[in-house]
Amino acid sequence: MKCRRCRAPAVIDVRRHNAGFCRECFLHHCREQVRKAIEDFDMFQPGDRVLVAVSGGKDSLALWDILRDLGHDVDGLYLGLGIDGYSDESGVFARSYADRTGAKLVEIDLPTAVGFDIPTGARLAHRAPCSACGLSKRHLFNQAAADGGYDAVATGHNLDDEAAVLFGNILHWSTEYLGRQLPVLPAGNGFVRKVKPLVRLGERETAAYCVLAGIDYQVEECPMAAGNRHLGYKDALNAIEEQSPGSKHAFYFGFLEKASPLFTPEAASEQEHLQQCARCGTPTTGEVCAFCRLVERAHQ
Amino acid sequence: MKCRRCRAPAVIDVRRHNAGFCRECFLHHCREQVRKAIEDFDMFQPGDRVLVAVSGGKDSLALWDILRDLGHDVDGLYLGLGIDGYSDESGVFARSYADRTGAKLVEIDLPTAVGFDIPTGARLAHRAPCSACGLSKRHLFNQAAADGGYDAVATGHNLDDEAAVLFGNILHWSTEYLGRQLPVLPAGNGFVRKVKPLVRLGERETAAYCVLAGIDYQVEECPMAAGNRHLGYKDALNAIEEQSPGSKHAFYFGFLEKASPLFTPEAASEQEHLQQCARCGTPTTGEVCAFCRLVERAHQ
Repeated sequence: MKCRRCRAPAVIDVRRHNAGFCRECFLHHCREQVRKAIEDFDMFQPGDRVLVAVSGGKDSLALWDILRDLGHDVDGLYLGLGIDGYSDESGVFARSYADRTGAKLVEIDLPTAVGFDIPTGARLAHRAPCSACGLSKRHLFNQAAADGGYDAVATGHNLDDEAAVLFGNILHWSTEYLGRQLPVLPAGNGFVRKVKPLVRLGERETAAYCVLAGIDYQVEECPMAAGNRHLGYKDALNAIEEQSPGSKHAFYFGFLEKASPLFTPEAASEQEHLQQCARCGTPTTGEVCAFCRLVERAHQ
Repeated sequence: MKCRRCRAPAVIDVRRHNAGFCRECFLHHCREQVRKAIEDFDMFQPGDRVLVAVSGGKDSLALWDILRDLGHDVDGLYLGLGIDGYSDESGVFARSYADRTGAKLVEIDLPTAVGFDIPTGARLAHRAPCSACGLSKRHLFNQAAADGGYDAVATGHNLDDEAAVLFGNILHWSTEYLGRQLPVLPAGNGFVRKVKPLVRLGERETAAYCVLAGIDYQVEECPMAAGNRHLGYKDALNAIEEQSPGSKHAFYFGFLEKASPLFTPEAASEQEHLQQCARCGTPTTGEVCAFCRLVERAHQ
């Protein structure tokens, strides 16, 4: 197979695009997909200060690297979750990338900041680990971005992630989530803008990007996620994609175009009822935000 | 495991309901699910004349049997599709049920009625066989019901079928289909009412119903359907159901409750533009209906 762009021998094929690429053109392809996502969804402008949530995995390191290549003003944020045999290693990859490239990495250690790690906090608060972890990340990313004066928080959610979350939300018809499952959540009410510049790239592409760009990343998946439903949704969509390449892209982008607007009124009306958390000031629908309730329960 | 209803030894378990049933109580359970679907969706009233589309498979024979048990005035309609090594056998099962029970079976032979069988018609008209077959069935069922003065056509689509069709429509965001994917399509514009009384039963249940009720049915699937996308959607949902029993029911009924109304305006506006087919008088969006176009192309 030859590279679609320069006709040199291809080193990777992307079935969804029915195309092969050489190393250089594949890296270009990935940057172009991110550039297009940023532009199409008006994620941020040149000169905006962007904080990338970096886990040490393939997606967040590829995102950080691509945003820097595209000339954006972007720092990394690493959150130490205190997951035994996983978090220490993930931090090494994040720091190693920063050291090698001279990029700035902000670090927050969850146990130091709030007094518990994810496994302990989840157990004490009777929450599923992935739920406690997502909640903590959203809260602390937002707080760090607001404190640091950043214009946007960028996360490494790729097309596979977003399609799987969409599938889960649709299986349960969680209409309030469907109304907010967008590649950009605007700033407002104390929330910093959230953007997902990798929505046009699959996880096979972000992994290949890191390999071909010479970026070392944590290959191991988080041990606490094993067996969660989200992975089952990914498997189901992978089987569909195998049968008809391009299905995930059509599913996710078709949703954004044709269905998402039908669900936004309900999500918007929920946003209108936000007030400030009595503990931390973050916007919340209740009196105390879910993160502060988690912290309280974990300390009881 | 004991029967949920009478505590006798169970012969079948229904994971979705987390329950086991003895033979008698399982047959009762199936009848109750159909009775509830008819009532909840106001499918038809006692005394209405119902025409059941009978293929000779488990779903349509179970439906016919249950509707008769529930005391409805129901005849069967068998459409011979002319599929080699499949259609002849399917007709035997349909006729055998009618002969044994004294139920009335109306028969239409597609080659006799329109001059071609499904494999030939599909090939000549350059349509996928399942597409040509579905189109022909919808047309001829409707015509037979209108000619015979029936109040409704009932089809054997079960929960697995409807969930898989819904999944396919959502993967492509076929919003006009989503607006019409209902267990009842009302009469109007020359269309007889269409109802799907098996939407509360899975295909494992309809198969078990036939076995336990002593109804012989065609086990073999249609050879022309092998490898079609619909079967891939079923496989994907089966994997989800295996992981979380009840997922299909929540997906389909959640759609009807929370999402279907969002898509109906578009489907309704399409219905407003229906006119009579210049050839056969059936309502259609074009000048000539899709079935008459199929017939024309197959005869060219």
